[in-house]
Amino acid sequence: MVKKIILDSDPGHDDAVAILLALGNKNIDLLGVTTIGGNQTLHKVTYNALAVLEQAHEYKVPVAAGCAKPLVRELETAPGIHGDTGLDGVDLPKPSRSVIDKHGVDFIIDTIMGNEPKTITLVPTGPLTNIAMAVRKEPRIVDRVKEVVLMGGGVHVGNWSAVAEFNMKVDPEAAHVVFNAPWPVTMIGLDLTHQALCTPARQRDIESIGTPTAKFVSQLMDFFRKSYEKNQGFVDPPVHDPCTVAYLIDPSVITVRKAPIDVETQGTLTLGMTVADLRAPAPADCHTQFGVKLDADRFWQLIHEAIANIGEGMDR
Amino acid sequence: MVKKIILDSDPGHDDAVAILLALGNKNIDLLGVTTIGGNQTLHKVTYNALAVLEQAHEYKVPVAAGCAKPLVRELETAPGIHGDTGLDGVDLPKPSRSVIDKHGVDFIIDTIMGNEPKTITLVPTGPLTNIAMAVRKEPRIVDRVKEVVLMGGGVHVGNWSAVAEFNMKVDPEAAHVVFNAPWPVTMIGLDLTHQALCTPARQRDIESIGTPTAKFVSQLMDFFRKSYEKNQGFVDPPVHDPCTVAYLIDPSVITVRKAPIDVETQGTLTLGMTVADLRAPAPADCHTQFGVKLDADRFWQLIHEAIANIGEGMDR
Amino acid sequence: MVKKIILDSDPGHDDAVAILLALGNKNIDLLGVTTIGGNQTLHKVTYNALAVLEQAHEYKVPVAAGCAKPLVRELETAPGIHGDTGLDGVDLPKPSRSVIDKHGVDFIIDTIMGNEPKTITLVPTGPLTNIAMAVRKEPRIVDRVKEVVLMGGGVHVGNWSAVAEFNMKVDPEAAHVVFNAPWPVTMIGLDLTHQALCTPARQRDIESIGTPTAKFVSQLMDFFRKSYEKNQGFVDPPVHDPCTVAYLIDPSVITVRKAPIDVETQGTLTLGMTVADLRAPAPADCHTQFGVKLDADRFWQLIHEAIANIGEGMDR
Amino acid sequence: MVKKIILDSDPGHDDAVAILLALGNKNIDLLGVTTIGGNQTLHKVTYNALAVLEQAHEYKVPVAAGCAKPLVRELETAPGIHGDTGLDGVDLPKPSRSVIDKHGVDFIIDTIMGNEPKTITLVPTGPLTNIAMAVRKEPRIVDRVKEVVLMGGGVHVGNWSAVAEFNMKVDPEAAHVVFNAPWPVTMIGLDLTHQALCTPARQRDIESIGTPTAKFVSQLMDFFRKSYEKNQGFVDPPVHDPCTVAYLIDPSVITVRKAPIDVETQGTLTLGMTVADLRAPAPADCHTQFGVKLDADRFWQLIHEAIANIGEGMDR
Repeated sequence: MVKKIILDSDPGHDDAVAILLALGNKNIDLLGVTTIGGNQTLHKVTYNALAVLEQAHEYKVPVAAGCAKPLVRELETAPGIHGDTGLDGVDLPKPSRSVIDKHGVDFIIDTIMGNEPKTITLVPTGPLTNIAMAVRKEPRIVDRVKEVVLMGGGVHVGNWSAVAEFNMKVDPEAAHVVFNAPWPVTMIGLDLTHQALCTPARQRDIESIGTPTAKFVSQLMDFFRKSYEKNQGFVDPPVHDPCTVAYLIDPSVITVRKAPIDVETQGTLTLGMTVADLRAPAPADCHTQFGVKLDADRFWQLIHEAIANIGEGMDR
Repeated sequence: MVKKIILDSDPGHDDAVAILLALGNKNIDLLGVTTIGGNQTLHKVTYNALAVLEQAHEYKVPVAAGCAKPLVRELETAPGIHGDTGLDGVDLPKPSRSVIDKHGVDFIIDTIMGNEPKTITLVPTGPLTNIAMAVRKEPRIVDRVKEVVLMGGGVHVGNWSAVAEFNMKVDPEAAHVVFNAPWPVTMIGLDLTHQALCTPARQRDIESIGTPTAKFVSQLMDFFRKSYEKNQGFVDPPVHDPCTVAYLIDPSVITVRKAPIDVETQGTLTLGMTVADLRAPAPADCHTQFGVKLDADRFWQLIHEAIANIGEGMDR
Repeated sequence: MVKKIILDSDPGHDDAVAILLALGNKNIDLLGVTTIGGNQTLHKVTYNALAVLEQAHEYKVPVAAGCAKPLVRELETAPGIHGDTGLDGVDLPKPSRSVIDKHGVDFIIDTIMGNEPKTITLVPTGPLTNIAMAVRKEPRIVDRVKEVVLMGGGVHVGNWSAVAEFNMKVDPEAAHVVFNAPWPVTMIGLDLTHQALCTPARQRDIESIGTPTAKFVSQLMDFFRKSYEKNQGFVDPPVHDPCTVAYLIDPSVITVRKAPIDVETQGTLTLGMTVADLRAPAPADCHTQFGVKLDADRFWQLIHEAIANIGEGMDR
Repeated sequence: MVKKIILDSDPGHDDAVAILLALGNKNIDLLGVTTIGGNQTLHKVTYNALAVLEQAHEYKVPVAAGCAKPLVRELETAPGIHGDTGLDGVDLPKPSRSVIDKHGVDFIIDTIMGNEPKTITLVPTGPLTNIAMAVRKEPRIVDRVKEVVLMGGGVHVGNWSAVAEFNMKVDPEAAHVVFNAPWPVTMIGLDLTHQALCTPARQRDIESIGTPTAKFVSQLMDFFRKSYEKNQGFVDPPVHDPCTVAYLIDPSVITVRKAPIDVETQGTLTLGMTVADLRAPAPADCHTQFGVKLDADRFWQLIHEAIANIGEGMDR
């Protein structure tokens, strides 16, 4: 069954792969990309989103710019991971079009309210500011959305502090709002995404497709490998964001576990931590779950297929 | 000079008087009323805003409903002060019209962006959720607004805790955003508004106008007197919100002092406190000030005149 | 090599087993037991410490009462786990002696300062109040102690909240002091102690010793099994505290991992969490480590031997 | 009636004057001086306490060194106010004796427990670490003490942040313990002590006594004047600490107001604030009060008399 999704994104190397996976898989109907200040400033990541779509010769999917700053705090970006542009290391095509004349938050609200109930899935892969803003501006979206599948957080590991992940730490208050709204939330956190490592063999496999987009992805991975090695001590870089889309394409790719999850907004050591309560089986009405185990072979196969499908520019 | 204002309000007994003061004074051009969950739920205060305008035979000023909940937290209302309806104690006319088809946050943004720079004054008299949402959704409003004159906070006194005022404590994160945006902010807090006491003599003076609206205000004050006596130990009730409008009509009504002001979002005893730094003269670029001294005679004269002007229904 | 230790304890069923393990193993020289309000009030746990020693016919090891309340907060006890007396479920012998005329905090300080440097090991199995008080009262003990091996905390699991363990949550400020003093700290937390489960087979093995003390331990386990099943959803109860002593008797019983560890004192969801930074190998000067893997067979063998050694009352 | 007091102090220029006031007034029986890390490190302030007593030719009052660090946090000192030695600007006599062989915390406990109930007044003029430690180590002192009269905090003003005073901000957790113990606490905070300004006329009046100690005090004030002018923007320096002793000599010197007072331990803007609840009359069982108004003439008269009494070295 085709799934209608909105990608809320701050590209970002792995965000770019998530966009390509969504574009190149027939079971995903990408209704739009909304952008959010995160890996880099709003201006830069919005340009990047347009450029990635340009790279894929995709000219119809609307891009709407969202919020430039977290709900309450100042923005912290990640140039050490994604470079000064947010997509360092590749030759970005110049976008031939611009964002639509609608705010990202309104694009999210209007798309959800304008489609049948329970048909739209939100896929945030950056700080959750836009999603929290949409919930506060139009609370009815909470009942109307199908589900939220987000990249962020982690149960047993952090990357922006000992126990917090970047997206959650940048806007813990927004994350608090999103996890406490009573919609279904699947957290694809670091426990899961640290299994999505782009080994040299995986990368060569993508390169072998031989298209410009395959080469583009390989260049992304070259830079990502270096920055993750230098800043986070990884041998192979974890390609976080497309795990969300892969889960929507084929839920069997990711084993999930239900558990109550909330976000710490006050701690000095734990700010932005996604706190899962694993002490007992989740209650029957638990609306949150998190990714535990990735079928890495199947995940990379999906990536490969999508990039191959896009070809020189997918016919859509 | 006529001042164009947007009232962002959660009526509320004193909010109602603020609306009437804005309607009845020729130097105020009330561009619209936006509503915000606070004294009561969004649904109730929006109804109340429409009913207060109906009472004044005012059918043109647009009313736009805003946010139902604080930026991050759950809503806490004040039924002990304003009753179950938010305007207990008066016979409210049934509104003959409804809210406009635009969200309060967007009404604020569009009005500011659609008028000349530095011509619009924001007058929030409830929790600052709508204003913070507008700042985050469209950051350009910060430079474009003339000023923000808000009721809330206090430097030496609280009413919802020892050191925090209701509007700030209900949404401390929104308040934090509003006070940290670099626009001119005048805080009309409890230090000031506790000087705006509606003594029996002041109330009789209003009653003596003899119109239905004068009677309406007197009924508001009857209820307000009782709830403030019972819940806050006041002899005469402080009529907080119209102080903001009075200051805009005639700045000489309120003596202000410049000082850096920020809002505590983390304390256990001090959550929502507006922290003014009075240790030294304010720096030259200080963009925040607070009301210190009220000319109570002049203030009540302005209220009286406005209610008299409204008459049976002001000709606008 | 014989290790000189001070047990700082709040018996407590598993604390009682820790005392017996220390008494019954020849490689442990138990210099004294200090008591701390925790599982139950100071008065009750002090009585229990004396009674457990009485049960083992041990009349020389001094018992010194420590602090009744956490460093900053009010005391929270654990009657749901340990019952109203702190040692419910057994017939406690009436102590024939009393505590010594020295405060627990001073006993700790004087013992450390009165012995050769680096010869005394502190073994806290309750809230860390006494240890933190001793550090603040006589900072020189930090350099002079051999090491601190404590039961408490956990890296991936909590029992008193989703992410915090009882001893740490009861006095997070004291824990903060202890983990930040630059002495060697080994945290035997829930990750480890949840491997120390008293299965029915383990319990029958102890019972088979046939002495009054073996029967006493078996009765402790009967109660502990019921309360852990009811309150924490365990099939077999985790016997936390003696893991510390077992590690000192034979370090090979527990695999440890070095990592920076600190304690959250401010969070709303994470208060008292022991935050270990596992993102990178521990720095060379890292003074904290935590237990990862228990050799359960060897652990229960040590318990068995110690109880057998105590016999009707060990000859000391 | 003669009052028996223990001064818990971190001299410090104004602490020195407090010691001299206690020594030179016949209604104060100074049982001992305990020292605490605060204005400078414990080592320095302890030396200073001995030197100030030496200056006054006082050789009997015991000095006991207390804690070097706050209960939970690291020590922050005030070299900008008191200089590198803690008593910069004067020629300190070299102490002819040393501290007693008892910890300050124990001196406090033993003195209280060794005297008749309700006869001992604690007079802390530095961070409240020693007092909190004593309360936790021997909780019975709370009922047994006569009262606590402390310098610190403030209701409407701060000096180490916008709303926090130095002593409270340095050890907010200790202050929390002291204000929450149910003994009578009089807070002589900045509201009061900023009325105890050493004007040039007051200083000349002291100088006119003509003794070495008078000259010593005048030198203290010279330095204090400069550092307060430079660092806090004062024309005349506020001589905080002796206000506590003056209040004990003659309560009519200070008008007090009863109010519930607690200390913020979590806020980011308000850490260490003494939060007084002034919204209603204090409840009948309120055990805390704060100084509101100083009779400055009488205060300086008491200082003058005490210094005159000390003369070349008071006969005690």
